[in-house]
Amino acid sequence: MKKRLFTPGPTPVPENVMLRMAAPIIHHRNPEFMEILERVHQDLQYLFRTTQPVVVMTCSGTGGMEAAISSLFTRGDKVITVNGGKFGERWGELARIFTGNCVEEKVAWGSAITTERMVELLKEHPGAMGVCITHSETSTGTASDVKALCAAIHEHSDALILVDGITAIGAHEFRFDDWGADICITGSQKGLMMPPGLALVAISERAQDVINNRKGLPQYYLSLKKALKSHAGNDTPFTPAVSLIIGLDEALQMVRAEGIENVWKRHEQLAEACRLGCQALGMELFSESPSYAVTAVWLPEGADWKQFNNTLKIENGITVAAGQDDFKGKIFRISHLGYYDELDMLTMLGGLERTFSMMGIPFEHGAGITAVQQAFLEA
Amino acid sequence: MKKRLFTPGPTPVPENVMLRMAAPIIHHRNPEFMEILERVHQDLQYLFRTTQPVVVMTCSGTGGMEAAISSLFTRGDKVITVNGGKFGERWGELARIFTGNCVEEKVAWGSAITTERMVELLKEHPGAMGVCITHSETSTGTASDVKALCAAIHEHSDALILVDGITAIGAHEFRFDDWGADICITGSQKGLMMPPGLALVAISERAQDVINNRKGLPQYYLSLKKALKSHAGNDTPFTPAVSLIIGLDEALQMVRAEGIENVWKRHEQLAEACRLGCQALGMELFSESPSYAVTAVWLPEGADWKQFNNTLKIENGITVAAGQDDFKGKIFRISHLGYYDELDMLTMLGGLERTFSMMGIPFEHGAGITAVQQAFLEA
Repeated sequence: MKKRLFTPGPTPVPENVMLRMAAPIIHHRNPEFMEILERVHQDLQYLFRTTQPVVVMTCSGTGGMEAAISSLFTRGDKVITVNGGKFGERWGELARIFTGNCVEEKVAWGSAITTERMVELLKEHPGAMGVCITHSETSTGTASDVKALCAAIHEHSDALILVDGITAIGAHEFRFDDWGADICITGSQKGLMMPPGLALVAISERAQDVINNRKGLPQYYLSLKKALKSHAGNDTPFTPAVSLIIGLDEALQMVRAEGIENVWKRHEQLAEACRLGCQALGMELFSESPSYAVTAVWLPEGADWKQFNNTLKIENGITVAAGQDDFKGKIFRISHLGYYDELDMLTMLGGLERTFSMMGIPFEHGAGITAVQQAFLEA
Repeated sequence: MKKRLFTPGPTPVPENVMLRMAAPIIHHRNPEFMEILERVHQDLQYLFRTTQPVVVMTCSGTGGMEAAISSLFTRGDKVITVNGGKFGERWGELARIFTGNCVEEKVAWGSAITTERMVELLKEHPGAMGVCITHSETSTGTASDVKALCAAIHEHSDALILVDGITAIGAHEFRFDDWGADICITGSQKGLMMPPGLALVAISERAQDVINNRKGLPQYYLSLKKALKSHAGNDTPFTPAVSLIIGLDEALQMVRAEGIENVWKRHEQLAEACRLGCQALGMELFSESPSYAVTAVWLPEGADWKQFNNTLKIENGITVAAGQDDFKGKIFRISHLGYYDELDMLTMLGGLERTFSMMGIPFEHGAGITAVQQAFLEA
């Protein structure tokens, strides 16, 4: 059976990217590789909309988040984190472990923090050195208004702004320089259409000053100071995942060719079609502020998750992501992040309809796929 | 021109491994991937000769070294490190940064520490909590007698033994359990014939106790406690480099098929042939205790490194590794680590002879390749 991946990381890898990575390995100090890394550095600036360095680290997105926290802050620094799901929670874990002084703002799963609440937090904690937010919370399929949050934070505070852009970059509009973010992280296996193994971290001038001049926490492999120093010479401080960086070069050419604004637009449209299709099958959306990367929906009334997922995966070859924590078995998540197009959304909804039919869940045959098709044809 | 890599990491990747990694990506929580990871875990135990867990981390070998230091020790713990080259030096850097209490024993480049000196060190520092050694020092092509060192350390101390096996595993005999090592690290791009991006860390029962029960330093991504907990369920704490782990599965099947003792024997013979070939061309060996992974030789008298390297690389397609630090431009290093056989050594020496000839360095035509061939035929 043909297998299709609709998970928010790993996401499908284009054939040309896979083949590029299958070429004979080259040494990371060869001029040929350094040329590739230089182009990757430039294309990452294009992707993040920045003139500042975006460093490539061999680790998962979480490694990039830790690199940011442990490179910018030291013991006792007060850091505000917003926890509206598994990945917002991770900011809090990292801040507690490394600074020991974390103000964690909990937000209901499926909701995003408002700028008003952010301003209150900054007033309650005038000494905060950093604010950590999540652009697209993968566990709930919820997007935050990062542009407005950045503006509000800058107006009321000097705190550094750390953005988890792991499932947002390449899906949602994001302008690192214009919006004034200080750190933004993504992972290779998300909007970048690559296998996992790389974290990409954009670093503002203000953050560079802190990283280079402040004596921080003990660190080595995840040091952004080391990463920045090597970046300046189109190098990395440690042996990088050479084959993945070569694949990233290929993937970034695809982003360049499509144009970043078109990439954002495509994701917005895929997300809208996915939501309309799911609703046409009678399912309810989980998030109040849906992400363009991943759509979270409630399981159909009375359906058993295990049976539903088996039918989707084993009978129809489609892998989606389960709900997490309190929402395990209650919601599921459909990814449209990265290498997806309009016909893929038709496939996804087609698979859902077949699953509904096999499980005897009542729905109007063709309603889901028709809603998707209409959304695209009328756009 | 055909290009051939003779560097000690990245090392050449077999075609079947490259193609296996080019297959469509799968999700890391799919049963299919978890089955692969379970097999990888078992095959890594075979490789390291251990019944204890060997965890797979998405980072370079240095990340694995940091994981060991920061997971086992805490501030103030005295750690003895042996520095006989760039990688022994790294143990010292890590110990200083994370424990702040490092006793660094410097050894001349090209020499290995003796067991007698190790015993003296342990007597001078009876409170040492750990000893960090390098099995094969890549920067100098020097092997340590890890078996004898482990025995001596156990006889005189309770210190944990941390072995950098990054270029030794899969080249030199190494028996984690029998020799009583507590930590051994390798990287994917070395004896394992893979692209870079994974560190593999074997952890003894004694080390597991320390990791699980002692409150250590702040850490997260590189936590061996987290890695061990996930390992027990054939999982990883963070999204792993899925495609690299799939390639590793293929590479480990090759090690299994050849048999680990045959793999060691092959490397011993390749190294010996390489040394004899280089000596037959009039070059002198750099190391007093040569590694089976990489051979370091002095440049021919009067030869300019840049010109020599360009002739070898650009005219003959062969990439070797330069000397480092004080030996930059004075020595160079030929790798025979991983996916190499007898005819590859003939190729390497053939390329050296052609380079000598092009540069007008006097030598007996065919002396290098004949020495290599004789070494193999007489073995």
